[in-house]
Amino acid sequence: MSVDKDKITDLAVQRWATAHSPRVAELMTALVRHLHAFAREVELTEDEWMAAIEWLTAAGRMSDDKRQELILSSDVLGLSMLVVQLNNRFSPQATPATVLGPFHIDGSPAVAYGFDMSDGIPGTPLFITGKVTDTHGSPVAHAVLDAWQADADGAYESQLPDIDEARLRAKYRTREDGTYCIRTIAPRGYAIPMDGPVGRLVRATDISHFRPPHVHFLIEEPGYERLITHLFQEGGEYLDSDVVFGVEDALVVRFDACPAGAAPDGSVLAEPYLHAAYDFVLQPR
Amino acid sequence: MSVDKDKITDLAVQRWATAHSPRVAELMTALVRHLHAFAREVELTEDEWMAAIEWLTAAGRMSDDKRQELILSSDVLGLSMLVVQLNNRFSPQATPATVLGPFHIDGSPAVAYGFDMSDGIPGTPLFITGKVTDTHGSPVAHAVLDAWQADADGAYESQLPDIDEARLRAKYRTREDGTYCIRTIAPRGYAIPMDGPVGRLVRATDISHFRPPHVHFLIEEPGYERLITHLFQEGGEYLDSDVVFGVEDALVVRFDACPAGAAPDGSVLAEPYLHAAYDFVLQPR
Repeated sequence: MSVDKDKITDLAVQRWATAHSPRVAELMTALVRHLHAFAREVELTEDEWMAAIEWLTAAGRMSDDKRQELILSSDVLGLSMLVVQLNNRFSPQATPATVLGPFHIDGSPAVAYGFDMSDGIPGTPLFITGKVTDTHGSPVAHAVLDAWQADADGAYESQLPDIDEARLRAKYRTREDGTYCIRTIAPRGYAIPMDGPVGRLVRATDISHFRPPHVHFLIEEPGYERLITHLFQEGGEYLDSDVVFGVEDALVVRFDACPAGAAPDGSVLAEPYLHAAYDFVLQPR
Repeated sequence: MSVDKDKITDLAVQRWATAHSPRVAELMTALVRHLHAFAREVELTEDEWMAAIEWLTAAGRMSDDKRQELILSSDVLGLSMLVVQLNNRFSPQATPATVLGPFHIDGSPAVAYGFDMSDGIPGTPLFITGKVTDTHGSPVAHAVLDAWQADADGAYESQLPDIDEARLRAKYRTREDGTYCIRTIAPRGYAIPMDGPVGRLVRATDISHFRPPHVHFLIEEPGYERLITHLFQEGGEYLDSDVVFGVEDALVVRFDACPAGAAPDGSVLAEPYLHAAYDFVLQPR
C-alpha cells in the first residue's frame, strides 16, 4: 500500500489499532497521532530527527537502577508532575500529591514518635509535627509516614557510596489521636544531575536546574488513597523555579526558628532548632 | 510557583521558551504541548508512565552503531517515513523519496556500467536498467547511483560477521545519455529484528513484521536534490504491509522473467534472469 504524507498517519493508526489489548491500542494510536502532529507542526528536519534519536539513545544508555535520565527528562518537561496530577484527583480538602522522585528507597526502618532520623548527621535540627486526618478532620491513627530527604549538602543516601544503614529516611506511625513527630535536620535544595543529555538540554535554556529544600513523604493507611507528597520550606531558595514542577502552595510550610530549650518531642535541646507544623489530610478511598 | 494540572503545561512551555536558540525553543515548546496533550487524552496512568520509561531505557541500552531500536521504533510508528516526506517535497514528476533505512554503508566502490555487484553470491540474476533524467525529461549524465540491498536470504552486509569487501553494494554512474545498468541478484523481503523492545510491542499487535523485497538507491548529482529511494518488486510479498511504511506505488516495478541468452548489458547469460526497467527523475535544486 502506497503512503503519502496526508495518509501515513491514518495508515499507522490503523496498524496500531490491531493491538490485542484495547488499552494498548488506545495508547499506541494516540501516541502515533500526537507524535505525527508534533513532526508536522514543527516540520521536523531529518537532522533534527537524527539528533532526537541520538539524544534518546544517550539517555537510555546512561540510565540504570542508580541513574535515570529518562525519568529526569520527563520531570523537566513537566510530564511527571502532570501524570501525578492526572492520577491523584483528590478533593480540595486533601493534601495534594507531588512527584515521588528518584530517591525513594523501599524498606526504611519503622521508628517511634519523635525518633531522630538524622542520627548525628550535621545540620540544623528540624522537628516536623502535626496530625494526619481524613477530609472530614477525623484523626487517622496508625498511618505510616515514610519520610526521606537530602542532607545539609543536598545529597540523598542513594547518591552516596557505601552507606550501610538507613540515612535520613524512616517510617513513622501516627498515634491514636493522629499525631506524629519527626526529628531530623533541615534539608537543602540541590541541583539535578547536569552531566548527561538532560543537563545538556537544560543548559541550552535559562531554566534553573535546582530544586527547593524539601522533605518527601509517602503516607499510607488502609481505606485511604496513598499520598506521595513533599513539604517545602517557606522562603527557601528556588521555590518559584523548581526544575521538576513539584511545588504546590499548599505544601509550602513555615520552618519556625526556635531557641534552645524545650522541644516538641518533650526533650530539651542545647541548640536552636527549626519547627514545622503540618497536618496531612488523606483522601478516603 | 505552585502548579496544577490546568496550568502545568503553560508553565512548562514558558520555561522551555527560554531556550537560547529560537529553533530549539520552537521544538521544545511544541514537544511539551504534544506530550502533555497525549498524556491528558489517554489519562496516562502512573504504571503506564513507568512502563514507557522502562521501554525507552531498554531501547536505548540495546542501541549502538550496529543495532538501533530507537530508529526502528520511529520506523514502525510511521514517523521516519513522515519525516522523509516532510523533507522531500519534490514535484509530482520526480521519483518519490523513501526511508534510508539502517543498512546504508558509506564509501561503496565506484564500478562500471553493467558491473555485477553480486560477485558470485547465490541468487537469481537481476538487471536494473534505465535512465536518470530531470523533471523535464533531460538526461542527467554522470549522476552517482549508490545501490545496496539484502541477499537472497534477506541479510545485509552489516548484519553478517567478517565481511572484508563490499557485498551487494556499489556506486554506479550514468553515461552521457543518462543511462545506467546494474547487475545483481534478486533481493528477498525480510523481518525487522524482533528480539528487542520494538519486537515485543509489534508482537502485541497483528502488524506484519516484514519488509517487501527491494533495492535501495541514493542518487546524487550537483544541481539536483539528493534522492534516497527504493525500488520494490511488483508482486513481491508484503508490499501491502511494509512494516516501515516505505512503499509508494511509483516505486513498484516489474521484474520481468527473461530466458537465458542476450542480457541488457550486452553479455550472454547461460541461465534465466530478471530484468527491471526504471527511469529515475531528479528534482532540480
